Amino acid sequence: MSIRIGILGYGNLGRGVESAVHQNPDMELTAVFTRRSPESLQVRSAGVPVYGIDELEHMQDQIDVLILCGGSATDLPVQTPKYAGMYNVVDSFDTHARIPEHFAAVDGAAKAAGKIGIISCGWDPGMFSLNRLYANAVLPEGHDYTFWGKGVSQGHSDAVRRIAGVKDARQYTIPVPEAVEAVRSGSNPELTTRQKHTRECFVVAEEGADLARIEEEIKTMPNYFSDYDTTVHFITEEEMARDHSGLPHGGCVIRTGSTGMNKENQHVIEYSLKLDSNPEFTGSVIVAYARAAYRMNQEGMSGCKTVFDIAPAYLSAKSGEELRAHLL
Amino acid sequence: MSIRIGILGYGNLGRGVESAVHQNPDMELTAVFTRRSPESLQVRSAGVPVYGIDELEHMQDQIDVLILCGGSATDLPVQTPKYAGMYNVVDSFDTHARIPEHFAAVDGAAKAAGKIGIISCGWDPGMFSLNRLYANAVLPEGHDYTFWGKGVSQGHSDAVRRIAGVKDARQYTIPVPEAVEAVRSGSNPELTTRQKHTRECFVVAEEGADLARIEEEIKTMPNYFSDYDTTVHFITEEEMARDHSGLPHGGCVIRTGSTGMNKENQHVIEYSLKLDSNPEFTGSVIVAYARAAYRMNQEGMSGCKTVFDIAPAYLSAKSGEELRAHLL
Repeated sequence: MSIRIGILGYGNLGRGVESAVHQNPDMELTAVFTRRSPESLQVRSAGVPVYGIDELEHMQDQIDVLILCGGSATDLPVQTPKYAGMYNVVDSFDTHARIPEHFAAVDGAAKAAGKIGIISCGWDPGMFSLNRLYANAVLPEGHDYTFWGKGVSQGHSDAVRRIAGVKDARQYTIPVPEAVEAVRSGSNPELTTRQKHTRECFVVAEEGADLARIEEEIKTMPNYFSDYDTTVHFITEEEMARDHSGLPHGGCVIRTGSTGMNKENQHVIEYSLKLDSNPEFTGSVIVAYARAAYRMNQEGMSGCKTVFDIAPAYLSAKSGEELRAHLL
Repeated sequence: MSIRIGILGYGNLGRGVESAVHQNPDMELTAVFTRRSPESLQVRSAGVPVYGIDELEHMQDQIDVLILCGGSATDLPVQTPKYAGMYNVVDSFDTHARIPEHFAAVDGAAKAAGKIGIISCGWDPGMFSLNRLYANAVLPEGHDYTFWGKGVSQGHSDAVRRIAGVKDARQYTIPVPEAVEAVRSGSNPELTTRQKHTRECFVVAEEGADLARIEEEIKTMPNYFSDYDTTVHFITEEEMARDHSGLPHGGCVIRTGSTGMNKENQHVIEYSLKLDSNPEFTGSVIVAYARAAYRMNQEGMSGCKTVFDIAPAYLSAKSGEELRAHLL
């Protein structure tokens, strides 16, 4: 019998989860849930119904894992604990500073309901976190580095779009190649924010807008841009649609460390991703962890889990015997 | 209280484990065990006793995890099941074809004794296996590639040393750069053995030996060299000692795959290692898994485990709260 998946929220991430479910023969998409009017939504999976969010109150016998595809700012802090009280759930909560309270809220609800709630699933947090943990455990004396990009940051793109006179914007985060090379060489450089990444913005301005003022507002924006070297390009709507419609991303996690009685030997561990579609890759990670949520719950486990708490074999549809024979 | 570690076998790997234990403040090295005469052995850790292997029969109350540092050909198939009946154990068994029977033997012994036996721990099998599993679970439609090197293969070095007229030898396995680049580009090339790696041998010949015959014997040796492009360099003993005394290694695991309703987006996941010392890095991985063996056994688990069966958090000395706060 297939693992029956529900998706709450049908934005970029919801669509990425949808296509990932299709790639896994042991899963089926049961329904998509939305806060919008269900009739307004057209999903790409033939025959899959769209329901209003309230239907989730009474579909526990039809869905094995509910995947929450809302945002970390306001959706998930409410939705994940709420639905962990009714379903096995997986989310991609990524507000690092608030993970402890989110974990506690989901843990309480999931334990009370006898369900599994997996939080902060994706690639960062997610696969990058895993690689930080493994590398730290193996090389206790060393240095950690994470570089993001080249890729589109939706938060930064949104920040530029909020500037008066900006019609559309896309922001790319780009690692500084010299910084990445210095890290890979094992020289353990201390790098400032500015030395690690640059930012590149493509902006469609309203007709007659003051381009110099827009550029200045971007480059001096606190938190988002002022600590970085930023380049701004003004382009047409046609160029935006033609050259910047994708959501690529990626990056790498590097740990360098030493071993030996006198720390005489150096090692470099690197994990890197090059992704054509950030939401589809994130959705693919989430779906693998949805399998884990289902199987752990079938074994009687409950409570909040992160990628750190889940034995890798739970992610795979293959048996232990197959995994040992072919992947070990 | 520290986790008390015993080491059986004090070759390169045993010494790598020894130095790794020193880097982990929650562990202490209790004793080194050897099949040689204990008096003949000098260990580098001050105050650590060396015992004959028979002492293992009655030291169960002094050692929490016994790390088995013998070879996969003849030592581990006997030692790991035997000592899994007395101790939590970790080994680095790497004969892929025999893993199923080794797993079964260790599982039976460990379950009967209520102990944990972790097998096939290191970087390949080990960290590379983990990355193959994670990447396969996340990108079910894709291709796997593993490249080894540049690094010293001890098995191939030994094979060259067995040739008549060879006094000493070191063999480096080298990935073909064009093959690695083709894989990284996402073009999913089909690569023959010869297209993936080359082999480079440094040989010290006996005085008066027939160098042309040695070179021919190396290059045509079945299984080891005949399927590869091999280069042979004859050097002096001084050059061998000066330039080839280390045991560097490394390599990478790459999975390329597609996502999307029409597989329209491509992704590349790469995990790579650059290691100054193969045995010290392997020892460091084993020691992290020794921590996992101890903690899982403390929680009442038993039986044979591989890296696939162990939740990452067990490897770290940090608490779940610390891990979530700092590495997630």
